[in-house]
Amino acid sequence: MNQHQKKDEVILMSHGGGGTRTKSIINDIILKNLGNAILAKLDDAACITVPESELALTTDSYVVQPIFFPGGDIGKLAVCGTINDLAMQGAEPRYLCLGLILEEGLPVSDLEKIIQSMGRVLSATGVSIVTGDTKVVERGQNNGLLINTSGMGVRCPGVDVHVSNACPGDVIIITGSIGDHGIAVISCREGLKFESELVSDVAPLWDLTHRLLKVIPNVHCLRDPTRGGLAAALCDIARTSDAGIRINETSLPVKREVIGACRMLGLNPLNVANEGKAVVVCQQEDAEKALDALRSHPYGRDACVIGVVTPAPAGMVLLETEMGGERIVEIPSGEDLPRIC
Amino acid sequence: MNQHQKKDEVILMSHGGGGTRTKSIINDIILKNLGNAILAKLDDAACITVPESELALTTDSYVVQPIFFPGGDIGKLAVCGTINDLAMQGAEPRYLCLGLILEEGLPVSDLEKIIQSMGRVLSATGVSIVTGDTKVVERGQNNGLLINTSGMGVRCPGVDVHVSNACPGDVIIITGSIGDHGIAVISCREGLKFESELVSDVAPLWDLTHRLLKVIPNVHCLRDPTRGGLAAALCDIARTSDAGIRINETSLPVKREVIGACRMLGLNPLNVANEGKAVVVCQQEDAEKALDALRSHPYGRDACVIGVVTPAPAGMVLLETEMGGERIVEIPSGEDLPRIC
Repeated sequence: MNQHQKKDEVILMSHGGGGTRTKSIINDIILKNLGNAILAKLDDAACITVPESELALTTDSYVVQPIFFPGGDIGKLAVCGTINDLAMQGAEPRYLCLGLILEEGLPVSDLEKIIQSMGRVLSATGVSIVTGDTKVVERGQNNGLLINTSGMGVRCPGVDVHVSNACPGDVIIITGSIGDHGIAVISCREGLKFESELVSDVAPLWDLTHRLLKVIPNVHCLRDPTRGGLAAALCDIARTSDAGIRINETSLPVKREVIGACRMLGLNPLNVANEGKAVVVCQQEDAEKALDALRSHPYGRDACVIGVVTPAPAGMVLLETEMGGERIVEIPSGEDLPRIC
Repeated sequence: MNQHQKKDEVILMSHGGGGTRTKSIINDIILKNLGNAILAKLDDAACITVPESELALTTDSYVVQPIFFPGGDIGKLAVCGTINDLAMQGAEPRYLCLGLILEEGLPVSDLEKIIQSMGRVLSATGVSIVTGDTKVVERGQNNGLLINTSGMGVRCPGVDVHVSNACPGDVIIITGSIGDHGIAVISCREGLKFESELVSDVAPLWDLTHRLLKVIPNVHCLRDPTRGGLAAALCDIARTSDAGIRINETSLPVKREVIGACRMLGLNPLNVANEGKAVVVCQQEDAEKALDALRSHPYGRDACVIGVVTPAPAGMVLLETEMGGERIVEIPSGEDLPRIC
């Protein structure tokens, strides 16, 4: 395929038939940018040898609109999202599977940009895509492309993080500002402009998490506050740990642009998705060391304590407001932000 | 949720927001029908302990239209397809991940039927869905539902099946009639009627494969001829094994309805997808034992030899026609059968 052809080429239904056209996508775009010894075999399943271990398995589909947004694209989002789901189990991300659902009419050059973007995250993190699948559907409302990534990681021995492990007296840490991803995507979709450009925080968090776990193996909970935002993450921790959580509004790190956009759009920053942040719950006496470890990493330099775990009211998250009041934080029902990841 | 509400309920964008509505789908439909101890934890990643082993990993997205077809539905297809990709590596399927992409407007009762259908295959095979993800997109052309399933299996020790292992002198076996799935789906889509009802062959093949491998651990290749049909599977074996393949048209098992429909639609049964068949390549001296093992299983009772592996022409598949001629079998380019799986 020469450069000129490629430039104007779009995805056709026949690219999904499993024949020679499917193979051209796989060879010219996928293998060229994501290739490794296992993927290159192009088997319907990849074979890998693992020692006795505890593995973490995860899957996520990505339907974000638009597919390119400030700070990232659907490909970077998919790879980071799967890496982060594994990292939040204290598992080192190793192998990813890639399911592409392409829409007829997608410019092949857009697909290539997205695959290259995935390749950059994979190179930086040492994670490999070992098997995949490509399907094509008719032109619809999906902006050209849906991605599923599933992944396997190996849990660090001796680490037992779980959302149900929060104990009264623990502190709640967030690794940086909240709402950046959701507001960056929705602003792009709605055509909002900011004085300074707000970008998505999408980032792979294993390196940061690993740095933390090396210092504090006894971290109680890790959770990335994606869909449903910080509110959903904290409510999950409170409910499954059967403990209360009390957070302080004034301590929440929220960028000025995010506050402004949320006011304009009628959103609560607590409900807006993040794609490069983690909630860390650990013992009070480990808090300083945890903050030092997190702040020593570029993705955690704004880490701060935002609250504490309390014995009561069990299963409930309370926000102490700036005005000195108190209100219950609830899981959003889901209307606010469709197709944010 | 009472029965009456459920009957009329459809998927809304808010079912994909990660909030309470997403949770209602997960609790009322997914956990109710697919629940197990690992899935019930509802973690973003499932943790499982494995002994030292060789694992197989696979992923596939399913975009079949229509989502209900004679003999199956998109749910049964997804679970069987992933089980079969693992089985074809000589791996016992263990854990599946489920990615649902729902379209706004999908009747919740249709989703429930599809999940129940997945549940039946899982119960029958002892495979578990251990983690999943649900997204919702606007109403489009996807008939309401796309599914990604990825899976992990444990390879049988001592088994070394691979598409590149075919040797001159080996025999080629197919486990039953070809083209049933593709023709069942496309006939349903095009409104074609047969005298007798043709149904998809969609079926989970691990039990059949395992029975074969216990008798003949030295099977050289296993391949399920899905997209691109038997032609694509054989071309892959010939190319990666650097050997020739010669098949005999008169020995190909093709149902009368499939031949008729192919004539009408201008299709070649060799290019039509199967979802419950396997190509087996083994040594000539193992052929009878292999056929006996396969025929002792309901999914292999029509197994037969369809050809042999030859030293030359390397990488090429030749068909000896009924008329005594010979023609080259090629991988279809992909135009014939969109959205068949």
